[in-house]
Amino acid sequence: MTDHFQKSIEMHKKYQWKLRMEAIVHIENRDDLSWAYSPGVAEPCREIAADPSKMYDYTLKSRTIAVISDGSAILGLGNLGHRASMPVMEGKCVLFKEFAWVDAFPIIIGTQDVEEFIQTVKNIADGFGGINLEDISAPRCFEIEDRLKAELDIPVMHDDQHGTAIVVLAGLINALKVTGKKKEDIRVVLNGAGAAGVAICKLLHLYGVNHFIACDTKGIIHQFRENLDISKQKLLEFTNKDNMTGTLSDAVVGADVFLGVSAAGALTGDMVRTMAPDSIIFAMANPVPEIMPELALAAGARIVGTGRSDYPNQINNSLAFPGIFKWVLKYGKKKITDEMKIRAAEALANYVVHPTVDMVIPGPFDPGIADVVAEAMAN
Amino acid sequence: MTDHFQKSIEMHKKYQWKLRMEAIVHIENRDDLSWAYSPGVAEPCREIAADPSKMYDYTLKSRTIAVISDGSAILGLGNLGHRASMPVMEGKCVLFKEFAWVDAFPIIIGTQDVEEFIQTVKNIADGFGGINLEDISAPRCFEIEDRLKAELDIPVMHDDQHGTAIVVLAGLINALKVTGKKKEDIRVVLNGAGAAGVAICKLLHLYGVNHFIACDTKGIIHQFRENLDISKQKLLEFTNKDNMTGTLSDAVVGADVFLGVSAAGALTGDMVRTMAPDSIIFAMANPVPEIMPELALAAGARIVGTGRSDYPNQINNSLAFPGIFKWVLKYGKKKITDEMKIRAAEALANYVVHPTVDMVIPGPFDPGIADVVAEAMAN
Repeated sequence: MTDHFQKSIEMHKKYQWKLRMEAIVHIENRDDLSWAYSPGVAEPCREIAADPSKMYDYTLKSRTIAVISDGSAILGLGNLGHRASMPVMEGKCVLFKEFAWVDAFPIIIGTQDVEEFIQTVKNIADGFGGINLEDISAPRCFEIEDRLKAELDIPVMHDDQHGTAIVVLAGLINALKVTGKKKEDIRVVLNGAGAAGVAICKLLHLYGVNHFIACDTKGIIHQFRENLDISKQKLLEFTNKDNMTGTLSDAVVGADVFLGVSAAGALTGDMVRTMAPDSIIFAMANPVPEIMPELALAAGARIVGTGRSDYPNQINNSLAFPGIFKWVLKYGKKKITDEMKIRAAEALANYVVHPTVDMVIPGPFDPGIADVVAEAMAN
Repeated sequence: MTDHFQKSIEMHKKYQWKLRMEAIVHIENRDDLSWAYSPGVAEPCREIAADPSKMYDYTLKSRTIAVISDGSAILGLGNLGHRASMPVMEGKCVLFKEFAWVDAFPIIIGTQDVEEFIQTVKNIADGFGGINLEDISAPRCFEIEDRLKAELDIPVMHDDQHGTAIVVLAGLINALKVTGKKKEDIRVVLNGAGAAGVAICKLLHLYGVNHFIACDTKGIIHQFRENLDISKQKLLEFTNKDNMTGTLSDAVVGADVFLGVSAAGALTGDMVRTMAPDSIIFAMANPVPEIMPELALAAGARIVGTGRSDYPNQINNSLAFPGIFKWVLKYGKKKITDEMKIRAAEALANYVVHPTVDMVIPGPFDPGIADVVAEAMAN
């Protein structure tokens, strides 16, 4: 067991839990009891019954989001079930609190049936100001998110998709500045057509990137491939316009950018050597990236980012989600739009005043990141 | 608007929320991030996947209960819907924290369909160490509680039923000591056959009270009444063995104990005058009791309790629920049995060393109440 796994077990045994409730009002006498609970509390109840929007004035709905998972795609572990996802969800709630002073509560859902999952979330949603979906497998996650966004009147975001996409775009914006490449001209290869891959492609396309090839474990996704799921079919709407076929090795020849949300070792040094000059590689598989930074740089890459904290350019979605939901709660917003995501990415990019090959993205502990993101989305 | 309603609105406007999340672990550097979240957290996830009981070692399940309502029977307000119940649920969570250092999170469920409610609660239950159901209407509450108790492996308690029953039994135990009456001999009239009434009857019967008459708004519940719902039919199994008919006025003649969980003014002074000597009256309708204490005492009652804090003998279920769930979490218990409830009631009664007519039950702010209840249940 590697060090960080061992330490995580030790610390989880020590703390046992990472999040608890704190009463903001204190019940020290009968008067406290009578306003905070019975009988006085009947009056805010009556006002909410008459006007449900008063939940935002009188309850924790105004300040609290749910972090929800069914455990079907936990980190790099896959489908270990909802119970096993709880340490991640609880940890995510801690990050919300620590990075953005956002109150978040973890909810694990004991069904992986899409319809029942949606109905369960809808049935508990009114107590929350927003919903962060987490670690839900593709392509189920697309329908779940789309339906919940359409059917609820609070913001819903699947962070594995959009949080990741925002941070990738932020890093790419600065990588283009450093390399002098133009978003309209670059050729991008995305490897890994799961939840994050689809969201990244969509957001970069909206931002103005024109030339995409997406690959999965079977190689380049093209229109003659059989049994493509709905998300891969959607990807084809704005990738691989020349209907290229072949493997990842074929796809990367001459490419400016490689974006990996796939698996350890998927990209080789030989492949990097076939890319365009000043290539940009974000190898985001965790904990072991598609290619180690040393290898990629030795093979000619100009800029390399990974999900790891022990190398430069950590592409970490903790840069995005705390600020996104801080904004949601602060301004009582109902939707998170693509335009807001692009503004958040631009703000994250601009946080780095002088981007370099070793610094295309802020670090997760840089001060004020959540506020920068929150304010960018609000403007 | 009365003072406590006005004050409650003012305080809810001031605080806006009464409960928030607190991160117990702090994320100050990359090492914290790597054990509390990615990638280290994968290891507790894997251990839980292999052995779900490890949720109690590594997550807030070990310390946290859900306070759940559908808003179908809010305080004395009736069915105002789930949203309107949120100030009560949040307040209840505050009481859990303040009285017993129990972490509780409010969940409001947006359906009043029994089957869908049950399924929703089951789908979110695995994240919690116990479930406190609250403000759910009768007779739906009986099926909901029975089913969830049978189908979940964590303790489930509808507090409106059992919390109330425990505190009533505690008060009655001391009232019998003060008046010298015997539980086997007393004649008890219960008015109000809702959730609390049924639970009170059941628990007192288990404790050894033999002679019961239960009344609802139509008078004495007897076997020739038509359209009795399931809960009233169940009540008949151990009430009204002589199959008495008539009104509440008829029922109370010669009775030793009146227990009201009904509505303001249901009991008159004239009725009290027909009761047995040294009569015991717990008039628990809120905020205005079935009879005001002054009236009851003037009509000959020996001991009068109400739900109010401005009279002696406040029958308040905040005496019971914090300690009950403190015990559940402390000892990782799976069920709350009737025997435990009786022990909790006896412990609450024994807390009052020298019961008097003005003190048959502790006050909600007496020190150590939650621990007394918790330890009694554990023994």
